Amino acid sequence: MNAGVVGTLRKLIGEDWVLDNLEQTKGYLYDQTEELIRPRAAEDSIVVKPGNTKEVSEILKYANEVKIPIVPRGGGTGLCGAAIPTKSSIILSDERLNKTIEVDELNLMVTCDAGVTLAALLEKLKEYDNLFFPVHPGDEGAHIGGMVVQNAGGAKAVRHGIMRNHIKGLEVVFPTGEITNLGGKLIKNNSGLDLLHLMIGSEGILGIVTKVILKLYPEPKYSGTLLVSFNNREDAIAVVPQILQRGIIPLAIEYMERDVALESAEHIGAKWPAVDGSVDVIIILSEDKEDTLYEKSEEIVEICDSNNAVYTSIAESAREQNTILAVRSNVYTAVKHNAVDGLDMAVPIGSIPDFMREIFRLADRYGAKTPSVGHAGDGNIHNFIMRENGEIPPYYEELKEEMYKTAVKYGGTITAEHGIGKTRVPNLALQLSHKEIELIKAIKKAFDPNGILNPGTVVNIE
Amino acid sequence: MNAGVVGTLRKLIGEDWVLDNLEQTKGYLYDQTEELIRPRAAEDSIVVKPGNTKEVSEILKYANEVKIPIVPRGGGTGLCGAAIPTKSSIILSDERLNKTIEVDELNLMVTCDAGVTLAALLEKLKEYDNLFFPVHPGDEGAHIGGMVVQNAGGAKAVRHGIMRNHIKGLEVVFPTGEITNLGGKLIKNNSGLDLLHLMIGSEGILGIVTKVILKLYPEPKYSGTLLVSFNNREDAIAVVPQILQRGIIPLAIEYMERDVALESAEHIGAKWPAVDGSVDVIIILSEDKEDTLYEKSEEIVEICDSNNAVYTSIAESAREQNTILAVRSNVYTAVKHNAVDGLDMAVPIGSIPDFMREIFRLADRYGAKTPSVGHAGDGNIHNFIMRENGEIPPYYEELKEEMYKTAVKYGGTITAEHGIGKTRVPNLALQLSHKEIELIKAIKKAFDPNGILNPGTVVNIE
Repeated sequence: MNAGVVGTLRKLIGEDWVLDNLEQTKGYLYDQTEELIRPRAAEDSIVVKPGNTKEVSEILKYANEVKIPIVPRGGGTGLCGAAIPTKSSIILSDERLNKTIEVDELNLMVTCDAGVTLAALLEKLKEYDNLFFPVHPGDEGAHIGGMVVQNAGGAKAVRHGIMRNHIKGLEVVFPTGEITNLGGKLIKNNSGLDLLHLMIGSEGILGIVTKVILKLYPEPKYSGTLLVSFNNREDAIAVVPQILQRGIIPLAIEYMERDVALESAEHIGAKWPAVDGSVDVIIILSEDKEDTLYEKSEEIVEICDSNNAVYTSIAESAREQNTILAVRSNVYTAVKHNAVDGLDMAVPIGSIPDFMREIFRLADRYGAKTPSVGHAGDGNIHNFIMRENGEIPPYYEELKEEMYKTAVKYGGTITAEHGIGKTRVPNLALQLSHKEIELIKAIKKAFDPNGILNPGTVVNIE
Repeated sequence: MNAGVVGTLRKLIGEDWVLDNLEQTKGYLYDQTEELIRPRAAEDSIVVKPGNTKEVSEILKYANEVKIPIVPRGGGTGLCGAAIPTKSSIILSDERLNKTIEVDELNLMVTCDAGVTLAALLEKLKEYDNLFFPVHPGDEGAHIGGMVVQNAGGAKAVRHGIMRNHIKGLEVVFPTGEITNLGGKLIKNNSGLDLLHLMIGSEGILGIVTKVILKLYPEPKYSGTLLVSFNNREDAIAVVPQILQRGIIPLAIEYMERDVALESAEHIGAKWPAVDGSVDVIIILSEDKEDTLYEKSEEIVEICDSNNAVYTSIAESAREQNTILAVRSNVYTAVKHNAVDGLDMAVPIGSIPDFMREIFRLADRYGAKTPSVGHAGDGNIHNFIMRENGEIPPYYEELKEEMYKTAVKYGGTITAEHGIGKTRVPNLALQLSHKEIELIKAIKKAFDPNGILNPGTVVNIE
């Protein structure tokens, strides 16, 4: 990066907060996208760490004037390369925007600076008796601002939905430098086209989020975790819609293949409690009353039994529950070193069994293994395409495209929660029409006339 | 309207479905906006009634080519003039797009044609044991498509949120004629900028909604209605955040002043059960278990007692409940004939008492009466500005603007659920920044380059 640019930025936000040395910047050049498919970073990118919203605005105004790309960066926990600067860029890290976590008990909301980590928010909420924020994408190093622009999901979407459902207000800096507050501590707000919702999931191409207002909830007092094993995928998957139709809305319904569970258990040095069967379903319940918890558990066991469950256990102690959840949480880390790509498709829940059957048939046709885990309760399954001899197998692109087409055929999506970022841009047209892509480009142009924000993300604009 | 236009449209969709005679069209020239502030309709507007999505597309292509405004119309139940053609227009009524109501029990979703009424949807759901759609804006003549583009709210938002929370998929025709499906039967979907959420609340300025996929829910089995009376507004309003903080999320918390309740009761020939006090709060609970219903009712009564409630009754019989709800539902109809404007502001729930105090002080300053009812549980209060001698009082615009400024000062909105439409366009800048209005205009331009869709709604574009 040009020394003049570095000098100007240092004048704007201070000597210490502009890094231009690769030793210092290299930790900012990647996110958690799988290594073999990770976009290549432009190593002459520099890092800026503004300390407040006004500095964010000044950086954007300057970058917009000299037309240098800005790549916004939160916790770097993303899985689609959105935070990787593929062109020589100014990486705008929100790590110093982490001072405020203001809990408003009266309104059941919290205002966070964008750079606050999920871990810090959860820690803060422990100071309160009964307050709960439901979205948990797995990695607590995620920044709240990043969770907004990636519209984070996670396991609890069955009951609580995704980030979008809980974001009430945003402070945003637009690429032309204007600082704007969208929404507020409001349950209802119909004043014009909803720019707040347009920002959610916008992956850093429309503006920089600097503050977030989130809804909080009273926390149910009792929770229990059921672990149920089956001899085959079909039986396991079939219980999901049956539970939901019975009017039981668990906190999470997770699907996990046994070989994946064992690998993850080994990875963290735990013992996986189930022996019989080859596929596990984890159902987490969270209820206000203990007897409701038992009644619902019994109903679920009944449903599983009538679907040929071969093993059922109800973990009530915190220790048992934690083991099961830790194994589930660590699947990604355990499998990742041997994976090319962790796909992120979703289909309507009623179509999961048929969809999964086709996915496995496709994998068989290519002689591929696709270990699978997922948030079955919301139709979102992560199928892994694995390495062969440590490398990307020759069929990878073709198999992935066939799988994506299968998801779309079932009315599904190529990405349920990880996002398009830079890695899925070539596949976007499998799901969206020409018109939708044209409108997305036009909106991008309206917000960011010089195209400085996160180029190459979501859509390629010439 | 030019005879050539009428002729072309008749060729496109059939002789019977194009009305150009004022006798036939006059019922299409207004919505439910209060009479004295209702925008004046262009009486030479014509009405088209396409029978399917393809015909909608053909009408739009033609209108876009000849640059004639299209005003989309659903049930005509709106309260902001969005459906009123203020320029000579083609009114596109979706009344014939009312064939499909497809309940998908497996996915707990329903697919409706846009012209299906809320009444028809609720009737259809009665055929099922345990399925529930929670949004109810009051008037069941509302069309589902209209409820989408107006992002309808209503009393149950405390627990279930608004239309936005339940819309999963849309079929949309863009002004340039393209038919596109946005979203689907999915809980999670992060594929690009979210055009689905941009369409929600877009008030007919971006495209025409022709089909809607909505989420359904299992219906809680037990419901009860509490009627609690207070001697003053402050005590009544203060219970709202206290109930929510206790972790009780009722289906609805409604605030109603006694004179309004009595007027509405008289209007429908019912007897209002409360005598003592001057302000009532109605709390509707809906629970899976009978004993939970009782426990929560008792907790609420306790909270109300400690806030100086002067009368409390728990209506359990369907008859008692229905009387209370009918009185609440009919407030609008009862008060309307004597009102100039039913405002629709919302503020953070914790600010309701202070906000209301200022609103009443403002009204006093102008010597105005402001009877008030509202969805107190979500911060949304409807304050009425009343007629004087049957006319708009001279202070109306000024008082309204002062009230709007007060809402904004408390972090609120000038319209929580009714929308900007045509009546609130002049006030939009009180809430939105110049930049937000500029972005809204740019998005409008991207979707509708010739500005044919619902001109004068949301933003004025020259």
